[in-house]
Amino acid sequence: MTSRPRLDVIGLNTGKKGRLHRILYKHGLGNGTALFLPYDQGLEHGPRDFFANPAASDPGYIVKLAVEGGFNGIALQIGLAEKFYWDYAGEVPLVLKLNGKTDIPSDAEPLSPLHASVDDAVRLGADAVGYTMYIGSPVQEQDFAQFRVVREDAHRLGMPLIVWAYPRGEAIDAKGGKDSFYAVDYAARTASELGADVVKVNFPNPDKREGVPSKYDREFTPQQAVEAVVRSANRTLVLISGGEKAGDQAMLEKAREAMEAGAVGLIFGRNVWQREHNESLRFVARLKEILAKYPSD
Amino acid sequence: MTSRPRLDVIGLNTGKKGRLHRILYKHGLGNGTALFLPYDQGLEHGPRDFFANPAASDPGYIVKLAVEGGFNGIALQIGLAEKFYWDYAGEVPLVLKLNGKTDIPSDAEPLSPLHASVDDAVRLGADAVGYTMYIGSPVQEQDFAQFRVVREDAHRLGMPLIVWAYPRGEAIDAKGGKDSFYAVDYAARTASELGADVVKVNFPNPDKREGVPSKYDREFTPQQAVEAVVRSANRTLVLISGGEKAGDQAMLEKAREAMEAGAVGLIFGRNVWQREHNESLRFVARLKEILAKYPSD
Amino acid sequence: MTSRPRLDVIGLNTGKKGRLHRILYKHGLGNGTALFLPYDQGLEHGPRDFFANPAASDPGYIVKLAVEGGFNGIALQIGLAEKFYWDYAGEVPLVLKLNGKTDIPSDAEPLSPLHASVDDAVRLGADAVGYTMYIGSPVQEQDFAQFRVVREDAHRLGMPLIVWAYPRGEAIDAKGGKDSFYAVDYAARTASELGADVVKVNFPNPDKREGVPSKYDREFTPQQAVEAVVRSANRTLVLISGGEKAGDQAMLEKAREAMEAGAVGLIFGRNVWQREHNESLRFVARLKEILAKYPSD
Amino acid sequence: MTSRPRLDVIGLNTGKKGRLHRILYKHGLGNGTALFLPYDQGLEHGPRDFFANPAASDPGYIVKLAVEGGFNGIALQIGLAEKFYWDYAGEVPLVLKLNGKTDIPSDAEPLSPLHASVDDAVRLGADAVGYTMYIGSPVQEQDFAQFRVVREDAHRLGMPLIVWAYPRGEAIDAKGGKDSFYAVDYAARTASELGADVVKVNFPNPDKREGVPSKYDREFTPQQAVEAVVRSANRTLVLISGGEKAGDQAMLEKAREAMEAGAVGLIFGRNVWQREHNESLRFVARLKEILAKYPSD
Amino acid sequence: MTSRPRLDVIGLNTGKKGRLHRILYKHGLGNGTALFLPYDQGLEHGPRDFFANPAASDPGYIVKLAVEGGFNGIALQIGLAEKFYWDYAGEVPLVLKLNGKTDIPSDAEPLSPLHASVDDAVRLGADAVGYTMYIGSPVQEQDFAQFRVVREDAHRLGMPLIVWAYPRGEAIDAKGGKDSFYAVDYAARTASELGADVVKVNFPNPDKREGVPSKYDREFTPQQAVEAVVRSANRTLVLISGGEKAGDQAMLEKAREAMEAGAVGLIFGRNVWQREHNESLRFVARLKEILAKYPSD
Repeated sequence: MTSRPRLDVIGLNTGKKGRLHRILYKHGLGNGTALFLPYDQGLEHGPRDFFANPAASDPGYIVKLAVEGGFNGIALQIGLAEKFYWDYAGEVPLVLKLNGKTDIPSDAEPLSPLHASVDDAVRLGADAVGYTMYIGSPVQEQDFAQFRVVREDAHRLGMPLIVWAYPRGEAIDAKGGKDSFYAVDYAARTASELGADVVKVNFPNPDKREGVPSKYDREFTPQQAVEAVVRSANRTLVLISGGEKAGDQAMLEKAREAMEAGAVGLIFGRNVWQREHNESLRFVARLKEILAKYPSD
Repeated sequence: MTSRPRLDVIGLNTGKKGRLHRILYKHGLGNGTALFLPYDQGLEHGPRDFFANPAASDPGYIVKLAVEGGFNGIALQIGLAEKFYWDYAGEVPLVLKLNGKTDIPSDAEPLSPLHASVDDAVRLGADAVGYTMYIGSPVQEQDFAQFRVVREDAHRLGMPLIVWAYPRGEAIDAKGGKDSFYAVDYAARTASELGADVVKVNFPNPDKREGVPSKYDREFTPQQAVEAVVRSANRTLVLISGGEKAGDQAMLEKAREAMEAGAVGLIFGRNVWQREHNESLRFVARLKEILAKYPSD
Repeated sequence: MTSRPRLDVIGLNTGKKGRLHRILYKHGLGNGTALFLPYDQGLEHGPRDFFANPAASDPGYIVKLAVEGGFNGIALQIGLAEKFYWDYAGEVPLVLKLNGKTDIPSDAEPLSPLHASVDDAVRLGADAVGYTMYIGSPVQEQDFAQFRVVREDAHRLGMPLIVWAYPRGEAIDAKGGKDSFYAVDYAARTASELGADVVKVNFPNPDKREGVPSKYDREFTPQQAVEAVVRSANRTLVLISGGEKAGDQAMLEKAREAMEAGAVGLIFGRNVWQREHNESLRFVARLKEILAKYPSD
Repeated sequence: MTSRPRLDVIGLNTGKKGRLHRILYKHGLGNGTALFLPYDQGLEHGPRDFFANPAASDPGYIVKLAVEGGFNGIALQIGLAEKFYWDYAGEVPLVLKLNGKTDIPSDAEPLSPLHASVDDAVRLGADAVGYTMYIGSPVQEQDFAQFRVVREDAHRLGMPLIVWAYPRGEAIDAKGGKDSFYAVDYAARTASELGADVVKVNFPNPDKREGVPSKYDREFTPQQAVEAVVRSANRTLVLISGGEKAGDQAMLEKAREAMEAGAVGLIFGRNVWQREHNESLRFVARLKEILAKYPSD
Repeated sequence: MTSRPRLDVIGLNTGKKGRLHRILYKHGLGNGTALFLPYDQGLEHGPRDFFANPAASDPGYIVKLAVEGGFNGIALQIGLAEKFYWDYAGEVPLVLKLNGKTDIPSDAEPLSPLHASVDDAVRLGADAVGYTMYIGSPVQEQDFAQFRVVREDAHRLGMPLIVWAYPRGEAIDAKGGKDSFYAVDYAARTASELGADVVKVNFPNPDKREGVPSKYDREFTPQQAVEAVVRSANRTLVLISGGEKAGDQAMLEKAREAMEAGAVGLIFGRNVWQREHNESLRFVARLKEILAKYPSD
């Protein structure tokens, strides 16, 4: 049984609580867990992510998949949300991704610029907004400054705020890398300290220890690491992301460990749609089997 | 027969749909295709572009040519639009170009600053605005930030937004260059993700493979490449640009391939006006012969 | 008996005076001294600070500790204040920390970006706001510029303004380091000149003399140094911070010297909560014994 | 007879047309030509420019000279306009210079910051505003961004906008230098594209060919060059500046060639006031003899 | 007899004229001259400036000294003005210093950020505001940009604007240094061109000639230099500052030369308060003997 925090004790105002309730209890399994389908890779990595399954290049295909798969939400950038969400509006919650960038220039000092506002999200009927924060970037000042405005707007408009908490940049590379337990743990905490309602992190890798602070330079099991990350996020709900497509069995095991640790759910993109349509739905079904074992109280 | 998306399914609000309809069905061939005449080279490259045909230095000559040639629109910077569009206002749609720069300093970290606003476009009776985005520039943060304001204003005022999606900068140079299939494909997608209604790209060159990501490092025909680019743009309409003046036969072949792939039209400047007046009109006539074969449904 | 300035002669407007009075006379010992519990280390250093006492990772534990220990206030970032202060609102004053950063990237040119506003503090019922200023940072222009807005808002809303005055950056490192008497003395003065109501400084170390200006390059006792710092702050009230956890006896001696010099109180975080719960309360009791000896007139 | 564009066909709104008419037809020769006296050198170069004629250090002396010499306008920075224009207000039109800088730091990446607004110009009764644009500067983004606001304000308030179009910066130095035909031609065009009503350029030097683009790397006479520059400016009126003090005969010859090419007039500062008072007036008389030969239609 | 400009011919609006009149005729000697006491060194240099006379560390001591010495005004930063001016408000005019910085980081590209506004000055009953401008700084763009806002606000609120015109930065260091006749002359002119009502400069040193422009690379007496500086400032009133503490006789001689040249007065800080109290008053008396010899008409 999970120890994840209940919606009524995590400091949400009325609009935020109502919208999160809709996501967690009126969609997906409806048991307080969440499975999200992110689709911002066309901007973040370019169309090369669609070569494995060319149909996935079509946003219409993906939104339909989110409906068919019974997801709790789909994350889109403003351009695609404007052009494709209308077709299925109301059938699956929209998470409007507010910022993003290409991966063409150097990632030494990353910053993800805003393309859309919380007001856009309200206009489009979204139930949450997404913001990518690059924890540890040398230009964190600019990142935090633009995040502050998003946080204030989300509060004002009662819009749940999901932070993609990504450790990145040359300093992170020198201190264990972006997937280290140290980096993911710090990222989850930072999102919580700055006001995220939900935080999306990668599964922490406690074996990445080169250059990490001494406290993290000892043996931890993956289960210990993910539990610590969920604790660091405290009353911010945790989503574990799938990252690059990998072996299904390993993915499902991580999903189970994450839920066991108290995560509220999963956010899997490439692992879902970088395969043929029916294969996608079958993989989604297996993820939902796991979520079904961890209902909220 | 093309598979290009219809105006009523691409997420346009009333003002945008009305103005795009006017451009596509009330001007040019009136069959849903478009032929645009861009005239921002005086700023982008300087007067040297007019040495081949000195008459082209006169904006009045060019606006008249757009009317005579039956173009679907002419793209001008604010200064020329203020001084020359009045003479033929209403006879050919105006695309007010909102940003631009000189090519004098280094292009390693390009950014095209705004000179005009969507409000200026409304005041001048324009039917669309144009914005140059340098995909992959190390200063993409600034680019996306100023684009965001343009997108919001264009939405608010119902003004179609055409993005000149140009891969540029030192990172692009290191990854196949600005005309590679990889770069053009990513550029089209980026414009679509960020909210362009129409995107202008160069014809992709699948032979530029040095440094491109592995997915793009294999054989593609030009036809395959341009089809992929149109797919990546999804519900954003695609214009193929002519670029530097080149052989007519090669140009016409590319135009045909682009339309076959589902592009909505062509945007040719130097290839049109860097020749004597009657020659210009004859070349335009040949381009329109191609467009006539690809009417919208 | 201390010579610290009285609340009625230090240029406070009504709201500031009322809130400071509440902090100093209605909480803690109620004798005009103050003991604050800072809890922004989760952002500033990451979760590693909680490894010594994992319970301290839970903000709920810390807020409860502030109440149990009879602190005059607890300092939280916006995210934690939103989620955890509600439980004990009114039982212990809230100091909303307005800015902060991670310690992942280089600290050569530090700047602490704003995450929250004085308006947020008012909304949450805070009795003071906290601002970290990096005295001597090469980007002091940006620091002072964002501080200016905070000072103006705090004045407008009658909110006491506590400055975490931290000498930092490559120039400080070259001139004796962040704890030198020179650096701490300059920091206290800067906060006072720029309009802090209260300033938090580290205990000055007069032995750090390498690279300091000649006036500071001679023998001073710690007592002389801390007295000079309090004088430099003039009508700005001084809080001495504990910094990293160290030996209790040394800490208590510094606390005594600080109060003897005219400080208004202490702000101890890691020295308090990086130990088991009852140990924390015992240490707090000893700090309060010292404060009890230095009541305001 | 000149071919310069008439006031009624160059896209001016009512306020701009009225004020330019006043300058061109109610002052100076009143024949549609213009002779301006610029006096911003005290800021741009410092007081050393006044050593040749110490009386010229006194702004009162210069404004009086503009009246005595029958100039069409005098260009002043805000400080001097506030303190000295009052004495002769109405007797000679004021061109309020809105930006400027010292020449002390490096000119590799020049930018001329704003000191005054179009609103200041209106308040002071000015008939035009002046803006220095550094064409080709590596920081052209900032330049164009601040120009945009000036252009909008000038349009809104009906104030003619004169651009000091100066090629400058390390890229210009590497491509033929600031006086090359290439650079001056590009500068005139840029001002026109961005919305200048009048552009001030230096007389182009077609012999500066080292590093210029190939189109400019052949023989041109000065007359051909200046005619091309006026053509590039199209409906933006052209003023030729005198630059550093040089031989009178050479200056007068350039003035004649400029007018022959279709320039609207001349803007001569140091060549006028870096000599004794009566000498100044005699030189002005010779300039006006030239202007008299090129009346507007 | 001095030739300094009269208050009624230097372009002041009503509020500025009234406040300057109060400073020059209702305080100090009341004869149109001025003696100011600057006290921003605690921020600019840190507390080390107070080691020579520890009492001077107390702002209360200094404000009282300004009253006892019959100064025409005292210059304070916002923090000290808020906390200490109340005690003697009305007894000596307040010059609110609006910007300032520490001297800890490198001074190669100096900029003095704003801490306070002209509105703050009005609220505190100040009779003038002070702004430090670093003439010749490589970041002059930012300096001029923030100055512009101050100038506009001062005009709007009728507040006299005193510019601390300091040549600084790596380019100045390479061209004769900050005290050279060249640098001080250019600084005075710049302040005048940009709209200062009063300018504070250091006494120019004509012997600093290494690297200065050729016009300044010859023999000038100090008297000639200071006269040129006052001429360059034209209708901007000139204050000569004392700078670092030096021999009294040399200081008094410079003061006499400055007044002879047409300066409106003196601004001496460290030379006044870096000595024992009665010595301070005696030195002030000698300065006032000089001022008494140069009344305004």
